[in-house]
Amino acid sequence: MKIALLGGTGDVGQGLALRWAYDTDHPVVVGSREPSRARAKADEYEAELASRGRDVAIEGLGNADAAAAGDVVVVAVPPYHVRETVASVADRLADDAVLVSPAVGMERDDAGLHYDRPSVGSVTAVAARAAPDPVAVVGAFHNLPADRLANLDAELGIDTVVVGDDRDARETVADLADDIEGLGALDGGPLANAPEVEAVTPLLVNLARHNEGLHDLGVRFQ
Amino acid sequence: MKIALLGGTGDVGQGLALRWAYDTDHPVVVGSREPSRARAKADEYEAELASRGRDVAIEGLGNADAAAAGDVVVVAVPPYHVRETVASVADRLADDAVLVSPAVGMERDDAGLHYDRPSVGSVTAVAARAAPDPVAVVGAFHNLPADRLANLDAELGIDTVVVGDDRDARETVADLADDIEGLGALDGGPLANAPEVEAVTPLLVNLARHNEGLHDLGVRFQ
Repeated sequence: MKIALLGGTGDVGQGLALRWAYDTDHPVVVGSREPSRARAKADEYEAELASRGRDVAIEGLGNADAAAAGDVVVVAVPPYHVRETVASVADRLADDAVLVSPAVGMERDDAGLHYDRPSVGSVTAVAARAAPDPVAVVGAFHNLPADRLANLDAELGIDTVVVGDDRDARETVADLADDIEGLGALDGGPLANAPEVEAVTPLLVNLARHNEGLHDLGVRFQ
Repeated sequence: MKIALLGGTGDVGQGLALRWAYDTDHPVVVGSREPSRARAKADEYEAELASRGRDVAIEGLGNADAAAAGDVVVVAVPPYHVRETVASVADRLADDAVLVSPAVGMERDDAGLHYDRPSVGSVTAVAARAAPDPVAVVGAFHNLPADRLANLDAELGIDTVVVGDDRDARETVADLADDIEGLGALDGGPLANAPEVEAVTPLLVNLARHNEGLHDLGVRFQ
């Protein structure tokens, strides 16, 4: 299953690209608005993997070409770029592609970070509205600690919740999540359940801020 | 430190009463609108503890008398009763009492449960507004699986996040949480961070609904 990471040069994209390339045999495509930047980052990821004895090719393409290549397309861009990014690649997505939204909108005040819920309910819902009709949209990977994810020496031991209205698409994404060592996938049900999943991300940042010695937190449901 | 549980006959109240009475030497007071019901439940808890070789006295009182007796007063009532319950005991609280709010407002749709955020920001904030000025209000114990908490054979291995504007009060409550075996307390910072904590509760219910074999979930941050 070919995985394309739009915004795959950013921190969550980097972590997911490295983990999938290291832990699985799924081909990984890094997408960026600038194809040259995607290529440079793909080279960097390949070097990191090679230094660990993992000789794997990672493609680097512009976002639209990456989207066209992916069986699963992860929109790993900042929340306020989700709508335009999905719209910009919409006519290149395969009808049976699965689009994955990991972004979370947050705002800061003196106390900490807070979930900034979009009027349509969630950032995952924003992605779903921008996607072409036949493409299934799934929310996942919202609550992952980016630095830890990108550090292949770091153990995960955490979960991700998968939400979306298409059960088969949820299963596809859950399987990809489970393929990453130390990451567990849980079914969160329909898209309408995305806000409570996305809201965990600012909580994790607040906990890291207020508890000495804790940083880069993830969550395990048990 | 004497702990009063207003609504201590309900499911979360029962679990906290049993755990504190079993795991610690803190005196526990069960409060209810009906003193006779509080007394009956306290007897029931005592019998449960005695059956496990723990001979401990638990008081059962009306909510106002329970509130007056507590160094720490947990408002373990449904979310829509928090305001009136706090108001009804306000003139009985000691100035240096710490009031604890574990309630979470939720609404249900076809997809699952959703966080029903009060206009003042959180149920914890509702409790804070209803409390008399000198009394510190802390949010905690929002995301605990009630049945598992009340089953002393069940291991916890989960966390609770403590929020509130008074740091000393947060520490007091965090210490009481840590006193329960298998429960970890994390500092969530100021009261303004309560909504993201409360929103985890409907997520836990949704996960239990959509994942076979999972029920009574808690959360561990790691």
